[in-house]
Amino acid sequence: MAFSIADITEARERIKPYVERTPLLRLKALDSFLGCEVYVKAECIQTTGSFKIRGVMNKLLSLSREELDRGIVCASTGNHGKAIAYATKLLGAKATVIIPEYTPVIKVDAIRAQGARILQCELEERYYIASEICEETGAILISPFDDDMVMAGQGTIGLEILEDCADIDAVVAPVSGGGLLGSLSVILKNAKPGIKTYGAEPVEIPRYTQSLAAGKPVTVDANLTVADALTTQTPGSRCFPLVQEYSDGVFDVEDNDILRAQKLLLREGKLLAEPSGCTGIAAVLTGQIPVKPTDKVCFVVSGGNEDLRTMVRLDEILI
Amino acid sequence: MAFSIADITEARERIKPYVERTPLLRLKALDSFLGCEVYVKAECIQTTGSFKIRGVMNKLLSLSREELDRGIVCASTGNHGKAIAYATKLLGAKATVIIPEYTPVIKVDAIRAQGARILQCELEERYYIASEICEETGAILISPFDDDMVMAGQGTIGLEILEDCADIDAVVAPVSGGGLLGSLSVILKNAKPGIKTYGAEPVEIPRYTQSLAAGKPVTVDANLTVADALTTQTPGSRCFPLVQEYSDGVFDVEDNDILRAQKLLLREGKLLAEPSGCTGIAAVLTGQIPVKPTDKVCFVVSGGNEDLRTMVRLDEILI
Repeated sequence: MAFSIADITEARERIKPYVERTPLLRLKALDSFLGCEVYVKAECIQTTGSFKIRGVMNKLLSLSREELDRGIVCASTGNHGKAIAYATKLLGAKATVIIPEYTPVIKVDAIRAQGARILQCELEERYYIASEICEETGAILISPFDDDMVMAGQGTIGLEILEDCADIDAVVAPVSGGGLLGSLSVILKNAKPGIKTYGAEPVEIPRYTQSLAAGKPVTVDANLTVADALTTQTPGSRCFPLVQEYSDGVFDVEDNDILRAQKLLLREGKLLAEPSGCTGIAAVLTGQIPVKPTDKVCFVVSGGNEDLRTMVRLDEILI
Repeated sequence: MAFSIADITEARERIKPYVERTPLLRLKALDSFLGCEVYVKAECIQTTGSFKIRGVMNKLLSLSREELDRGIVCASTGNHGKAIAYATKLLGAKATVIIPEYTPVIKVDAIRAQGARILQCELEERYYIASEICEETGAILISPFDDDMVMAGQGTIGLEILEDCADIDAVVAPVSGGGLLGSLSVILKNAKPGIKTYGAEPVEIPRYTQSLAAGKPVTVDANLTVADALTTQTPGSRCFPLVQEYSDGVFDVEDNDILRAQKLLLREGKLLAEPSGCTGIAAVLTGQIPVKPTDKVCFVVSGGNEDLRTMVRLDEILI
């Protein structure tokens, strides 16, 4: 069955008691830097510190008690794992989170604090190991993006943006597997076909810009980036067609520009986000996404799980 | 004529086109630290980076063109001066801002960037010098707090808090001259007598705790504090009676606790405020203000003009 608007509106009702209705902040102080009217969907203050709880909660609430009791497994670079750990604890289920090395300590600690089991591995192995555990134990694997229920949860962000600003002109979101951008694009284009939706990914792992150019999902090399939450090498098979059909394009941004965007958001907008949450701002800051001064542009700041100690690197960054 | 509710409701209409309707953020991540349901009135993302623009704009819009053309003078430790500089430029008037040494460079630069004339002096001299200039030149002196029109502008914060959360139980605000706390207390107690209103000031300059204990305004010694926006030595003569009659008390907080509060707000709430904006959070964090887990408590985070470079001091602060 195809992914639909109804999936997203049903997700909205299902997850409502468990997730924050995050504010859409009008951050005028950023207008002159970005050349548009800046709105920020502040998922950095979402429960568990990122938007991931939306999809995870929608998925887990759709499982039976028997399924939950088989245990939940996920592979994650941190935010999906933190959401899984939090939600499974809430629902009384056991979770195993496979995280790669280089996962920020702040995220590992948060997952551990919720009582989830943590297995660390190399970046490329994480999905393979997660699948193996599920085959052996009968546990349920929950993808961070390639699952209609997860995608539907992420799409609820689009409903909230429209409620808060019905005449938004464009929405820009970070991209990794593509669940957020795909689902957002479906709901926003359905509500108002004129809205533009864009994605922004780190140039070090350009899975979407390359896949869109090729017209099909391609796998790029594993790599490191300051956007540590955006490390997926291959677009989600269920996400890619939605991004391809409904979004207006994905742009890639350099690490230094991501940090410029993070610093700009903090210094002028007073909001702390993790670098991964700032790729959209970076793509407009670098002039890649076309905007006009009268455009109302919403940046989905997808997460805020940033260690204050790593922020010292912003000292040397020039906006 | 006595300060009244009508002053505040009229101010609301007068300043509406010029100031931000700032959001009341529900920051659940802070609940467990503060022992209540945490709401933040985010004046750190207000135009000019602090609530001061509300009072300044209300005052300036009440002046005649002839008065504006005589020039505007103020004494300020930064935020009031920044608001004066911004608003006078907007209204085509000339401003002179008297700022003491130790004013953060980020604030001095912002005042200068708006084209205001800056005079630097010793902390205790600033009001005297400002008065002298006005006497000599006929310019209009605008107090940061001790003026009904300025107070009325600050009180508009209370109207917005009530609109966004009608069943708020308590509101906590930083205190220096007392214009914000006095006006807030008047409007909130009038709307709902059960609401508690509290102030929090740096222990290094305890003008309100000492004055309330003495039953009259007393002058305390000049001193340095990380709360560089809260350095007034004597409560405002028009503010003190309002704070005394309508607020539920003022508490003093140590510099280290102010920095703990600033770090907590940033790390858990993802919001960057200047230390002065965090005294209310500090007063609850230290257990001085009585709150219950079911209380909805609003912290007025009054300003965000913080230099990112000074934040390195937060590294050593333990929450």
